[in-house]
Amino acid sequence: MEAYFDNSATTRCSDGVRSLMVRALCEDYGNPSSLHRKGMEGEHYIKEAGVRIAKTLKAKESEIIFTSGGTESNNLAILGGAMANRRSGMHLVTTRIEHPAVAKPMEFLEKQGFSVTYLDVDGDGRISLEQLEESITPETILVSMMYVNNEIGAVEPVAEAAERIKKKNPKAIFHVDAIQAYGKYAIYPARMGIDLMSVSGHKIHGPKGSGFLYIGDKVKVLPILHGGGQQKGLRSGTENVPGIAGLGQAAMEAYSQFPEKQAHLYRLKEAFVEGLAGEPWAQFNGRTGQDGAPHILSLTVEGVRSEVLLHALEDKQVYVSAGSACSSHKPAPSRTLQAIGLKKEALGSTVRISFCPGNTLGEVGYCLSALKEIVPMLQRFTRH
Amino acid sequence: MEAYFDNSATTRCSDGVRSLMVRALCEDYGNPSSLHRKGMEGEHYIKEAGVRIAKTLKAKESEIIFTSGGTESNNLAILGGAMANRRSGMHLVTTRIEHPAVAKPMEFLEKQGFSVTYLDVDGDGRISLEQLEESITPETILVSMMYVNNEIGAVEPVAEAAERIKKKNPKAIFHVDAIQAYGKYAIYPARMGIDLMSVSGHKIHGPKGSGFLYIGDKVKVLPILHGGGQQKGLRSGTENVPGIAGLGQAAMEAYSQFPEKQAHLYRLKEAFVEGLAGEPWAQFNGRTGQDGAPHILSLTVEGVRSEVLLHALEDKQVYVSAGSACSSHKPAPSRTLQAIGLKKEALGSTVRISFCPGNTLGEVGYCLSALKEIVPMLQRFTRH
Repeated sequence: MEAYFDNSATTRCSDGVRSLMVRALCEDYGNPSSLHRKGMEGEHYIKEAGVRIAKTLKAKESEIIFTSGGTESNNLAILGGAMANRRSGMHLVTTRIEHPAVAKPMEFLEKQGFSVTYLDVDGDGRISLEQLEESITPETILVSMMYVNNEIGAVEPVAEAAERIKKKNPKAIFHVDAIQAYGKYAIYPARMGIDLMSVSGHKIHGPKGSGFLYIGDKVKVLPILHGGGQQKGLRSGTENVPGIAGLGQAAMEAYSQFPEKQAHLYRLKEAFVEGLAGEPWAQFNGRTGQDGAPHILSLTVEGVRSEVLLHALEDKQVYVSAGSACSSHKPAPSRTLQAIGLKKEALGSTVRISFCPGNTLGEVGYCLSALKEIVPMLQRFTRH
Repeated sequence: MEAYFDNSATTRCSDGVRSLMVRALCEDYGNPSSLHRKGMEGEHYIKEAGVRIAKTLKAKESEIIFTSGGTESNNLAILGGAMANRRSGMHLVTTRIEHPAVAKPMEFLEKQGFSVTYLDVDGDGRISLEQLEESITPETILVSMMYVNNEIGAVEPVAEAAERIKKKNPKAIFHVDAIQAYGKYAIYPARMGIDLMSVSGHKIHGPKGSGFLYIGDKVKVLPILHGGGQQKGLRSGTENVPGIAGLGQAAMEAYSQFPEKQAHLYRLKEAFVEGLAGEPWAQFNGRTGQDGAPHILSLTVEGVRSEVLLHALEDKQVYVSAGSACSSHKPAPSRTLQAIGLKKEALGSTVRISFCPGNTLGEVGYCLSALKEIVPMLQRFTRH
């Protein structure tokens, strides 16, 4: 048996996505900017993807700007949002547990003279709305916050945050990194007070190299890539038609039979947590119930290095992550795990398990058996 | 019969590219940053693509940075190159006939306080090496020039330009936009004095949304996208593994049986030019022989609007371009055609024909017959 539980790192492309992409690669391959029929065909794929995605968000197709992925979406939101509004102020707010694709653009802007307030989180990885409200000043032009944390599945109070922000400073733009949340929650940006929202395709069984930034109607953003003026001048470059089509298909699939999928993910998570309930070496970080994300579990295994556990599980064809995969080539202590107060020993002994709707309870059972077999053995080695 | 002669706008994905992409989408779908086997598989695709591409350039795999396409490659080269070297000077040099993906970043930098010298071109679209040399000052940090012009196929004297630049200012970085040249010419950046070189995948039967920037070993560039630090910190974001694999495959295919392909393209071009030799209404812009690019022809048809001709040809399943497709949604007089001195009437009556190695002499013959039938008819309409 194989159990791929690293779906928050990336997912397998769905068959529907693949078919559509192959069509756009080899049959309807025109450049959307071409004036002839083949160009129109390409444009049609983009339009259709925009409509499909907008529907999942109760948004307008014109509010969807296609990018090359989550990192670019975050960069466009933060750098482009800050640059477009710098005349209103130079203050930004974010949290201590953001993905590098948000944290690094923030650091870049600090070097350009912006000031950034970093919000703390509690032991479950959730921000304090009071601290958020206090942080907003008349100079605040942008607040960036993740919807679901990629390492522990903490869910931030996004709608409440929007209210507090707008109450203190109606002009401040609210950006939400929804890369781990889209497809797992019903998200309606306009209704929730979200101005900008980043999404990545390959986290929802779409293709790598695809993503979008939701940009609310009245929100000003400047482009970070300059050229032919595609995507309303906000993202130049010949559109990645196959990738965009694949993303639209993946979005549609993620939100079809959505309540069932979400419930299934919670069942997998619950089974996993319950299965380790009696084990003294297992400790979950963050909320493990319905108030945590349905698909992410953070597990600290006492006395076992996370890489060692990862490779031992790999030998049994169980795939998990040591922290977040997105920058795991440069092992550094996880900022999220530090921010929630994990002790030093625990920081290096934590793995992430992340599910997709295609995973089964059988796979969870298989992984649990593997863990119960492997962990005591590895702990014995460590003791020597 | 169908004749797709808009290959400089975009190409059909090759079957080899498609197969490899499907494998990376649905089988070997791991995140290259993941530490387990599935991650390694993803990383392997990237490594292999880098090796394949480096081989075509006689470069090192470490000199290839994967991007989301030609526009991003040009932006990274120009914005990233200028920012990394601004302490050495604030002067840039480019030409009057660059693609918007070069021209617009240049305009952006002008707004940031850089000064830009725009080189003129002659009636064939070629720069003057003397003017280039004169333009280089001790403050010049970057020169950006296209290898092959996308609208008329003019070939710039790149190697000679590099010599002149380095002679006047050895520290100035030389960037070449090779988006229309890669796969059509043998290009060895190190040998030719090229420091940075942009390439796009979808112009060579690879996927849209793929591209690379060659960055010579010692050349300093700063990233424009910030995040997880992928691609040596120069291009953050989970790598588009299927796109990168497809690009590597396309590069390999483009340079296999390369002399035959190049000769075939010249034969198509020659047949096209000869076929219209007797027609008083046909005038080609730029050099039509071996000193022009093998795959691009710019044809001015007296008294017929280019869009009208484009759509009339489309009715016969012949696909050409009205100017460059890359920004054709905003019809504006072509900067290239203006720069080579085309008269006002001719500006709006010019189409681009662009070939790929898969095109046939039969398709050329079919297109020529169509033109000879259509043009006199359209001219009669225009006269009324």
